[in-house]
Amino acid sequence: MRIYLDNAATTPLDPEVLKAMLPYMETMYGNPSAVHHFGRETRAAIEKARKTVAKLLNAQPGEIFFTSGGTESNNMALRCGVEAQGTKTIITSPIEHHCVEHTVNWLQKHYNVKVEHVRVDSKGRFDLTHLEQLLQTVQGPVLVSLMQANNEVGTLQDMERIAQLCKEHNAWLHMDTVQTVAHCAINLKETPVQFISGAAHKFHGPKGVGFVYINSGVKIEPLIYGGAQERNMRAGTENVYGIVGLAKSLELAYANLEERTIYIGGLRHYLLNKLRDTFSDVIVNGDEQNSLYTVLNVGFPMTDQTSMLLFHLDVAGICASSGSACSSGSNKNSHVLEAIGADPNHVAIRFSFSHYNTKEELDTLVEKLKTWVPTAVEAHL
Amino acid sequence: MRIYLDNAATTPLDPEVLKAMLPYMETMYGNPSAVHHFGRETRAAIEKARKTVAKLLNAQPGEIFFTSGGTESNNMALRCGVEAQGTKTIITSPIEHHCVEHTVNWLQKHYNVKVEHVRVDSKGRFDLTHLEQLLQTVQGPVLVSLMQANNEVGTLQDMERIAQLCKEHNAWLHMDTVQTVAHCAINLKETPVQFISGAAHKFHGPKGVGFVYINSGVKIEPLIYGGAQERNMRAGTENVYGIVGLAKSLELAYANLEERTIYIGGLRHYLLNKLRDTFSDVIVNGDEQNSLYTVLNVGFPMTDQTSMLLFHLDVAGICASSGSACSSGSNKNSHVLEAIGADPNHVAIRFSFSHYNTKEELDTLVEKLKTWVPTAVEAHL
Repeated sequence: MRIYLDNAATTPLDPEVLKAMLPYMETMYGNPSAVHHFGRETRAAIEKARKTVAKLLNAQPGEIFFTSGGTESNNMALRCGVEAQGTKTIITSPIEHHCVEHTVNWLQKHYNVKVEHVRVDSKGRFDLTHLEQLLQTVQGPVLVSLMQANNEVGTLQDMERIAQLCKEHNAWLHMDTVQTVAHCAINLKETPVQFISGAAHKFHGPKGVGFVYINSGVKIEPLIYGGAQERNMRAGTENVYGIVGLAKSLELAYANLEERTIYIGGLRHYLLNKLRDTFSDVIVNGDEQNSLYTVLNVGFPMTDQTSMLLFHLDVAGICASSGSACSSGSNKNSHVLEAIGADPNHVAIRFSFSHYNTKEELDTLVEKLKTWVPTAVEAHL
Repeated sequence: MRIYLDNAATTPLDPEVLKAMLPYMETMYGNPSAVHHFGRETRAAIEKARKTVAKLLNAQPGEIFFTSGGTESNNMALRCGVEAQGTKTIITSPIEHHCVEHTVNWLQKHYNVKVEHVRVDSKGRFDLTHLEQLLQTVQGPVLVSLMQANNEVGTLQDMERIAQLCKEHNAWLHMDTVQTVAHCAINLKETPVQFISGAAHKFHGPKGVGFVYINSGVKIEPLIYGGAQERNMRAGTENVYGIVGLAKSLELAYANLEERTIYIGGLRHYLLNKLRDTFSDVIVNGDEQNSLYTVLNVGFPMTDQTSMLLFHLDVAGICASSGSACSSGSNKNSHVLEAIGADPNHVAIRFSFSHYNTKEELDTLVEKLKTWVPTAVEAHL
């Protein structure tokens, strides 16, 4: 048995997406920069993919640049953004993904950029009054880098309001949308933002491909130099099947957005209720109400058994992740849980869902959890 | 009919490689950084791939880092190399690929690095006496960036000698091996080099994945920051199927190296002889004798017909490329042909071969060429 509840880490490739990619792995292998027919057919596929992505996000095709993934997209937006803007201050938050946090640290060191952090409350919500104060007082030019939804706890931010604030104060905005693209409607014509990022493998597309949106008003230099690919903005022979797969998966996601939102949101709600009914003292890390519907980060009371809960679940065939960034089995505290002041006496587990999950899987999960987590009945005895 | 003679641009994916990749696109989709079994199986696949690549190049697994391709690998080696070494002078050549040339230009501008160019003769061979003079006189620390074989004209350099010279003068060496990995034996234990690069799609592997070899004696910082992937050296969720495909294609290439070298070299020889027998005044751009066996760059006398030769060939279903970097059908002079002083009264066409090509295809090519290229008989009339 395998129950996969780690969709915020990566999602299974949709068979329809694979089907769209395969012709480019089997027969249409030309280098898109070649002038012959083999090249023209792959060039056409890339430009079609670009139009698809642009249309779904209400952007211009010329604003979409394909990259190797969300991490490269965020690195590119930040590094090239700072260079193009001549940024003096970056305003970010303490709960950003490492690919933003570490890049900001690098810029602080190498470009002498001042870094300010927006305060975050116990639910992972940005303090927008503080953001406004910062925007009013810091030295410009200013680049704001904030995520639309947190990958560990799911808290959704008010990106419309943040974008408006940045616009009012002439700050540039980089929005890390890796967890929200394809899961939330994004209308770039209505949202004043300079950069957003996406990674196909977060929405049932292939690994190794992503995109960065760069508003047409912004002119940057590349991060990766070489050939004239991506209109001189990202060199290297294009990952043709990856790009085709990215567009296909984004298309499927937005075609089924409402249905999936309701279905997956329903699973999340169902699991949380069931966990609360079954176990004692279950807490939610993040903002229970205003959350990405794909992510549920809960805390179980710390015991000898629950401290090993992820490993127990794994042995039982259930894939979830800790709120913290684990590697090689060693636990390291999560900077996100720390920043929101999560209770250290609860063990954080992130369950993240896709439309492939079922209520039956969640029933099985809860049954299994009873082996290690104190139930409400036990607590009342 | 389709005859594909543009294998230096990109190669068809070997069906065996696709077969090795598919399980990771269908069922084994875990994020390699996840601690559960789905993650462990993809992590294991990546580490197995790393060992395979290392073994085939006689390197240590810890010296191989997977990237999005040859361009990123070359950018990473140069940018991170300069930062780690504190490079004062880069010695490169006027016939490097744009991903080296443009990155060097960027470094010259942003890191105040002095750039020297090794002289190149009319066959595209580096003047090693000049290299030695430069190494003796330029200000250090010195980073040398030279390609093992030129992608446009195929000229092979004496990399052993270059590596020895760099070692003797305490210079670091970055060797662009994108055209030679999998096509020539490379023994990194015997060759004192700091960085080499590879791109899977140049040897019947997938697009969008490559590697950079970084000698264990060199400690650099990443180009792309974020998660702890690739031992903190290249962040971003790994392109698992790409990496599996890269290793498989490299394995197949080296298992069949001798056979393919002889076969493809035979095709090259056969075509050149046949072109010379059939047409008048055919010249070779590059070093006829000491060349990559996969590349043959020839010049045909310029006429109204031959000036459009690539387009004629394309209409006839034959894919080749010009020696120059074409884009969108507009001809731009090749910096390589210019640097070696190629005859501008000859039209340069690059034919590049793989083991999938046949003599019959070359016979068809020569027959077709007669339509537009003056034959030896015509010339003697």
